[in-house]
Amino acid sequence: MQIAIVLYDRFTALDAVGPYETLGRLPDSETVFVAEHAGPVRSDTGHLAVTADKALAEVPNPDIVVVPGGPGQFDLMADEVLLDWLRTADDTSVWTTSVCTGSLLLAAAGLLDGRRATSHWLALDALKEYGAEPTGERVVFDGKYVTAAGVSSGIDMGLTLLGRIAGDEHAQAVQLLTEYDPQPPYDAGSPQKAPAHLVEEFRSKSRFILT
Amino acid sequence: MQIAIVLYDRFTALDAVGPYETLGRLPDSETVFVAEHAGPVRSDTGHLAVTADKALAEVPNPDIVVVPGGPGQFDLMADEVLLDWLRTADDTSVWTTSVCTGSLLLAAAGLLDGRRATSHWLALDALKEYGAEPTGERVVFDGKYVTAAGVSSGIDMGLTLLGRIAGDEHAQAVQLLTEYDPQPPYDAGSPQKAPAHLVEEFRSKSRFILT
Repeated sequence: MQIAIVLYDRFTALDAVGPYETLGRLPDSETVFVAEHAGPVRSDTGHLAVTADKALAEVPNPDIVVVPGGPGQFDLMADEVLLDWLRTADDTSVWTTSVCTGSLLLAAAGLLDGRRATSHWLALDALKEYGAEPTGERVVFDGKYVTAAGVSSGIDMGLTLLGRIAGDEHAQAVQLLTEYDPQPPYDAGSPQKAPAHLVEEFRSKSRFILT
Repeated sequence: MQIAIVLYDRFTALDAVGPYETLGRLPDSETVFVAEHAGPVRSDTGHLAVTADKALAEVPNPDIVVVPGGPGQFDLMADEVLLDWLRTADDTSVWTTSVCTGSLLLAAAGLLDGRRATSHWLALDALKEYGAEPTGERVVFDGKYVTAAGVSSGIDMGLTLLGRIAGDEHAQAVQLLTEYDPQPPYDAGSPQKAPAHLVEEFRSKSRFILT
């Protein structure tokens, strides 16, 4: 299987690397990082660049599409080069997936109309505006569409999808190899669990970031 | 603060990106990816390249050193360019850290002699041979040395160290922003929890990989 992970200026790195490190360990698969143009693509902080080994046009029919999120998503919501590629790739894909605000790009391409889906917790309202039916789950399957919540949730999505395709035992082996036995030092990873004033601060800032 | 994340051929990407995405969100900090030579550096799968924006020699005195692990670590255990850089950087660093088999490189540089430390679960014996005192914990602090277990543990290490430096509230805000509320689909992330035959398979293979 060919797995295409889409990069764009100001993507969030962990959104892309979580699925790469888990789903990318699918047997007999090839993962390829793609962007509108081949070459290094800078993440949202500006401090990291991942190489797009191929241009979108060179990878028209991946079996699995992975679209990460990140602040750069906003500028692409009407980018017909990317949206056309997503629609064409989706025509033949076995799985079409996203992490974080990557689901807004899938939705902008018209791929999530009426579908259950998720996104970064700050982007759930925007996801609804683009025609999807947001849920509060961390990983959402609707047919061949698999969407994950914010940033780090791509690890859970990648492992879950890996298990669906390659079987539970292979996914468990990858979990063991990556020693994914999470022990966060705090319990503040969702708006339900984090201190309320932090949630409010992000919500007030996000009006400028996400909509 | 300047945070230097070391890259080398066949590093494991999540080892580097976990701390980058958490610790790298330290206020008033600059994260720089470094390698022996500047330019793209390929990860262990061969399918991903991260750009080293600077050569090691250009970043002699980072405040925080982060050394990821990966299969490429083995070939560097006597690489005097890297080991000398690690010793020199450590002379003035505030924190010297590693993820996964990155701790073997710190140990090979002589920086973990007699110190409590950790590594990928398959590398704990090797870590002991290099003079450290391995523990089974996921994130281990010993003075300014902070080592993390395998691959994904760099996220926990990054958040924990972020909290120590910038305060709990800032670390919680980063946890919320990255929606780090892990929900692995299996409970197989450590040798204590995974099916025993998977653990044994990795142990038998690791004789060729890690020692």
